[in-house]
Amino acid sequence: MSAVSTPAHTTLAIVGVGLLGGSVAAAARKHGLFSRIVGAGRNAPSLERARALGLIDAVVDLADAAAQADVLVLAVPVGAMAALFKTMAPLLRPDALVMDVGSTKADVVAAATENLGARIEQFVPAHPIAGSADSGPEAASADLFQGRTVIVTPLAHNAPQLHQRATQLWQALGARVVEMSPDNHDAVLASVSHLPHLLAFAYMAQVASASNARERLDLAGASFRDMTRIAASSPPMWRDIFLANRSAVRAEVQEFKAMLARIETLLEAGEGAALETFLHGASQARRLWNQSNP
Amino acid sequence: MSAVSTPAHTTLAIVGVGLLGGSVAAAARKHGLFSRIVGAGRNAPSLERARALGLIDAVVDLADAAAQADVLVLAVPVGAMAALFKTMAPLLRPDALVMDVGSTKADVVAAATENLGARIEQFVPAHPIAGSADSGPEAASADLFQGRTVIVTPLAHNAPQLHQRATQLWQALGARVVEMSPDNHDAVLASVSHLPHLLAFAYMAQVASASNARERLDLAGASFRDMTRIAASSPPMWRDIFLANRSAVRAEVQEFKAMLARIETLLEAGEGAALETFLHGASQARRLWNQSNP
Repeated sequence: MSAVSTPAHTTLAIVGVGLLGGSVAAAARKHGLFSRIVGAGRNAPSLERARALGLIDAVVDLADAAAQADVLVLAVPVGAMAALFKTMAPLLRPDALVMDVGSTKADVVAAATENLGARIEQFVPAHPIAGSADSGPEAASADLFQGRTVIVTPLAHNAPQLHQRATQLWQALGARVVEMSPDNHDAVLASVSHLPHLLAFAYMAQVASASNARERLDLAGASFRDMTRIAASSPPMWRDIFLANRSAVRAEVQEFKAMLARIETLLEAGEGAALETFLHGASQARRLWNQSNP
Repeated sequence: MSAVSTPAHTTLAIVGVGLLGGSVAAAARKHGLFSRIVGAGRNAPSLERARALGLIDAVVDLADAAAQADVLVLAVPVGAMAALFKTMAPLLRPDALVMDVGSTKADVVAAATENLGARIEQFVPAHPIAGSADSGPEAASADLFQGRTVIVTPLAHNAPQLHQRATQLWQALGARVVEMSPDNHDAVLASVSHLPHLLAFAYMAQVASASNARERLDLAGASFRDMTRIAASSPPMWRDIFLANRSAVRAEVQEFKAMLARIETLLEAGEGAALETFLHGASQARRLWNQSNP
């Protein structure tokens, strides 16, 4: 059975129907991939809104989600995964594909390994590089994954056809699929996603806690806006991500402080030419990146 | 004579017709504030393009710009101001208003004080909080200052009517005018503009210099894009700003490192609740700012 080619009588169950879970539902519906989409989770008002928005056909409890799903997507904070795996493991259908959309992978794989038992074969970890500072089912979009990258970190245990179904499903939702190991995923994402969020939170906290914060914020312009946009992101979600990936995040913070120290040394010494060379390297790299990622 | 109310037979001279200088020209023309707009500077091809774009009526040499101007706007890197002041001081008309648009103020005021002699009375320093990662006359816009803030740092020497003319001119270009001392300007801008640029340059350099830079950049998404947009800014311009305002910038870097240290401590100790509280404070502050600055 393929989730992509035979939609009749197949059920997609999503645990946590917020921005990402809701967007999986919306994209799956748009592309006609399942005959039924159900939602489960702890946030009853949010689930009800997701149903009212038409993202899901019904709200079910966790046990029913696990028992009914042909494909089960866990779209909850990474800190909440372990308990879900444990609850659902005995209930899963033996041919069900289980995926997450968490921002970290090594910890989710560890939680799955510890709690899914033999069902670990059915779990294909995934991370869509697609997000928004907005959250909740109202922010969901059927086009969120269109042209975006989804990193899949298949496990040695995965049955080949499940691995293939996972890839086909993400492609059917509009994404390109990249495969990596969980550890490499976490190291790379610490660099290109987790560190920028940490820097934005730290910088925003710095400005907001200054004695003349109001004067500063009143004169903040476009550069401030760009630098801090992601500081409005969900605090519990980012607490989980920073803690789950703390060793890679701390390594990136160390590297960043080394970069700051280089600039400080150049400033202190008034080394204008070397400073300009440093800035030029960064500026060129950003312009080149933008050309490849318009 | 008012630059605002009597446009007939008045000349606006702009030295450096790039993004900011070109936008002053475009906005002044749109609002009909001068009968003639001339441009001067070291970059002959750029001046010729500005003339071809209709931003200026003619390209003139520095001596003619100084001698003809009713209002003279210096829109050059802050490191280039001192030499300009020195060249132009003996040529300025006694009723001319001289302004700059530099991103730092204490150093520009010092350069003016040292090089303008008695003409210091005619110099009203200004800094429009309006910019773009783009540069050059092609990026100029008649609406760049519309609804934006221009910080004016009037000097004790300024004749009151010149000070008033400066304010009225910026208001006529669409801006709101805020007055500050040069030192306070530099401290506040170090926080809300210079530090974000420094962080963006440092972060971009870190990613680009990693041994697996290509893999990282290939997986970079929206948060990376926002965090690094301003790292594409002009290296010579930012070299000048960082050096000119280095003591305030270094103080902000120190504060930032203290914020990083707080987060590192929470990560190391696994203090989830305290980490979430920290992130929540930043997130709330950013959301509130956005409500006031949509």
